[in-house]
Amino acid sequence: MNETIKTQLEHRTIREFTDKKISNDILKILLDVANQTASSNGMQNSSIIRITDQNIKDELAKIGNQEYMRRCPELFIFIVDLYRNYNIAKEMGNENNIMINFDKFIQGFTDGVLQSQNFTIAAESLGLGANFYGNIHNDTKKVIELLKMPKLTYPIVGVGIGYPNQKPQLKPRMSLSNKLYTNSYEFKVSYLDSIKDYDKEMRDYYDLRDSNKRSDAFSTQILKKQGSIIKNREKMFDTLEEQGFVIKK
Amino acid sequence: MNETIKTQLEHRTIREFTDKKISNDILKILLDVANQTASSNGMQNSSIIRITDQNIKDELAKIGNQEYMRRCPELFIFIVDLYRNYNIAKEMGNENNIMINFDKFIQGFTDGVLQSQNFTIAAESLGLGANFYGNIHNDTKKVIELLKMPKLTYPIVGVGIGYPNQKPQLKPRMSLSNKLYTNSYEFKVSYLDSIKDYDKEMRDYYDLRDSNKRSDAFSTQILKKQGSIIKNREKMFDTLEEQGFVIKK
Repeated sequence: MNETIKTQLEHRTIREFTDKKISNDILKILLDVANQTASSNGMQNSSIIRITDQNIKDELAKIGNQEYMRRCPELFIFIVDLYRNYNIAKEMGNENNIMINFDKFIQGFTDGVLQSQNFTIAAESLGLGANFYGNIHNDTKKVIELLKMPKLTYPIVGVGIGYPNQKPQLKPRMSLSNKLYTNSYEFKVSYLDSIKDYDKEMRDYYDLRDSNKRSDAFSTQILKKQGSIIKNREKMFDTLEEQGFVIKK
Repeated sequence: MNETIKTQLEHRTIREFTDKKISNDILKILLDVANQTASSNGMQNSSIIRITDQNIKDELAKIGNQEYMRRCPELFIFIVDLYRNYNIAKEMGNENNIMINFDKFIQGFTDGVLQSQNFTIAAESLGLGANFYGNIHNDTKKVIELLKMPKLTYPIVGVGIGYPNQKPQLKPRMSLSNKLYTNSYEFKVSYLDSIKDYDKEMRDYYDLRDSNKRSDAFSTQILKKQGSIIKNREKMFDTLEEQGFVIKK
């Protein structure tokens, strides 16, 4: 096992950081890695907004409802960006609606997620800790206003990085026997039975986010997390249309 | 610069491979890395289908319209999978439509893309080459039929890996000055001007995929690639609904 894979298998979310600043040289390397990431059709339909303004960080933490987001030393928001290429085409007299349809949105979204993961591993390989902030989806409309994002752009995910000030337990994952299939999708007789051991593992796991209490069983978490609703997350669709993406023909 | 970052900055798409088999030990490590990847809310709403059947590979290559896909030694299709957790909740008597709405779809989609990137870097760190297959989006309905995927699942991206039999040039990327902003989105006076140097760089770059011809300028590629249409890609939305995802309330 090499250092890269060791880093990857040691991945855990870091939410608390020391005061040590990340040097500009390191930030440049991480961003270069993000930029070298594969991109759908080579179109590079994503961009990155670095948040250095504490007020904006505070607002994002409010939207995301995760107070520790305010304290992450460096915060980067990855966004879908069809605005750039659309404008290049427009200046060439050739813009059209195909360029901004849902398929192209999905391509840009994929590009940005790939970049965020590549960026994160690079950071972790240098001893930094990282936290993905999917919480910006709690209210993408507010995020768009806050970051003054134009039409044809959309927030994907945030990544906060810094030098770790905590060493959480590795969070258990559901076994690959539940997630990996060969040649076609494979079914279980009982899904609940198939995660029995995992349910127990999760109950024994301490999530530092939740004041050192043990976790719920995974099945209980599904009901709480996946079965519950954050109102503005339901509006993603409307916001996509307001942002000018062509959803249906 | 460490080995991880060196690997990341050397990323290039590999389309042709030697006959050398990837050992089961290595495959296991790569899949373990995928499984340790961060996941939205810890819900792990993605799965992986390994394609070992040459007939299925051939069919996927036809759908994707990329002949070399047939020859990739190992092929993995990452998919959104809300089916698993929905069934766990159902067995507990608690399923509801919130669990399968568009927000949850996007979370599963993000999880799968993060995994595909993590998997790819692990492979590259071991000297393997990789190719992302976004081309499965050419006709996701056919992919779903071919892989016998149930409702509440959806194809995200394929990754083909093997030992490289080519060493393509590094593909130039648009400068970060076009993609990186601070605190809010930043605009250009002319987007076409801002990529002048990049246009020239791309013209000088040889894409091995295209029989060793030089590439088009990036701006020309936008018109060809982003401005053109593959008919069934337009149906993503209908297919999402057929797959049972709740798109609108």
